[in-house]
Amino acid sequence: MPYVNIKVTREGGPGGAGPSTQQKAELISGVTELLAKVLGKNPNSTVVVIDEVDLENWGIGGLPVPEYREKTNASISSTQ
Amino acid sequence: MPYVNIKVTREGGPGGAGPSTQQKAELISGVTELLAKVLGKNPNSTVVVIDEVDLENWGIGGLPVPEYREKTNASISSTQ
Amino acid sequence: MPYVNIKVTREGGPGGAGPSTQQKAELISGVTELLAKVLGKNPNSTVVVIDEVDLENWGIGGLPVPEYREKTNASISSTQ
Amino acid sequence: MPYVNIKVTREGGPGGAGPSTQQKAELISGVTELLAKVLGKNPNSTVVVIDEVDLENWGIGGLPVPEYREKTNASISSTQ
Amino acid sequence: MPYVNIKVTREGGPGGAGPSTQQKAELISGVTELLAKVLGKNPNSTVVVIDEVDLENWGIGGLPVPEYREKTNASISSTQ
Amino acid sequence: MPYVNIKVTREGGPGGAGPSTQQKAELISGVTELLAKVLGKNPNSTVVVIDEVDLENWGIGGLPVPEYREKTNASISSTQ
Repeated sequence: MPYVNIKVTREGGPGGAGPSTQQKAELISGVTELLAKVLGKNPNSTVVVIDEVDLENWGIGGLPVPEYREKTNASISSTQ
Repeated sequence: MPYVNIKVTREGGPGGAGPSTQQKAELISGVTELLAKVLGKNPNSTVVVIDEVDLENWGIGGLPVPEYREKTNASISSTQ
Repeated sequence: MPYVNIKVTREGGPGGAGPSTQQKAELISGVTELLAKVLGKNPNSTVVVIDEVDLENWGIGGLPVPEYREKTNASISSTQ
Repeated sequence: MPYVNIKVTREGGPGGAGPSTQQKAELISGVTELLAKVLGKNPNSTVVVIDEVDLENWGIGGLPVPEYREKTNASISSTQ
Repeated sequence: MPYVNIKVTREGGPGGAGPSTQQKAELISGVTELLAKVLGKNPNSTVVVIDEVDLENWGIGGLPVPEYREKTNASISSTQ
Repeated sequence: MPYVNIKVTREGGPGGAGPSTQQKAELISGVTELLAKVLGKNPNSTVVVIDEVDLENWGIGGLPVPEYREKTNASISSTQ
């Protein structure tokens, strides 16, 4: 009966358009197995929902992901 | 003041592209009436958000919905 | 297969400690029936989760609910 | 380490297709600063996710937003 | 950078008061490893939040869990 | 009409039992002002819900927060 919501950025996978069908299937089966193993939950009533979020809709460090990565990469290259 | 989030798979409705505008309106009014009737909540401050989720992003029984249905239908027809 | 999350303030019900067991049962059955009627969803795979939120953890009009109600009631009585 | 989810209707911004990239960046930085100021949270572990919801998927007053606004505007003009 | 929310009923674990500290630690590490393996996500920015929900606040089959189980067990024993 | 959900760990504030009433009021007013300023949203229909999560229910770096901090502090002191 568990409900699991996985939010990831819409990147990677084929054409960079987000996780592939295969990857999403692996996340669903992996999480369901984990809950069966750790808590004995019934896979048939375990619900998993995957949300894919556009990069500019995801913030970290006070910046949208694209800007955060730009800033992080710039600071790395400035120390090289 | 209640907040209700309804997550459904993106299927059914016109062209199978998810619930129709009319169906979503019925869900919104139905849930709002239910909260007014059961808890006396004010419809004008009852927020309802409907999320439509792609079939391959929804897992049940450790499988994405399309594969789960395939497996379920196969096991049904094998018993006929 | 729908997943419905209902968030309400922790008030009303017995002792004002939030919706009663009976009221929560009515919300669960009402929402499940609504999804079966409008979208033909199977009740046996419809998950409903009710979250009860402390009044000071719920904001409206820029204020926690207790202060918002105080302010609203004060402005009502000032117009009487 | 906070996680903030902001759900807004998909409107406004360029072409009315939802908040602009700039507006979303302002929401992300504003929320992150607020959590740093009020709770001393580390911006680098503050996650903000913005969800944009279609108008017909958002209900208020028992109606989808487009119908709610129509009804509200009609009642305003009837009192003028 | 993924955000994973796991909702489970408040049962099992020591004294039946919900998953044990150890079980929750296993869920956190298992989900984080899964996201690193499948999507190459950095564990240090993978956030996992576990919500424990009272049985009467969780609905399935149109009933709160306690009633649903009663009904299911009754129908099983009636077929024995 | 925005809905904002803020999840923070249950720490800090009076007695370390989570944000104080005053801090939560500041988060509510701050977020509501931000949405009014950036997107012109009406404070009276902006809903903010704050969830406080037990430390052992929050995972980062594959560990529950208490263990993550122990590990991080140990590695810091080992470099001093």
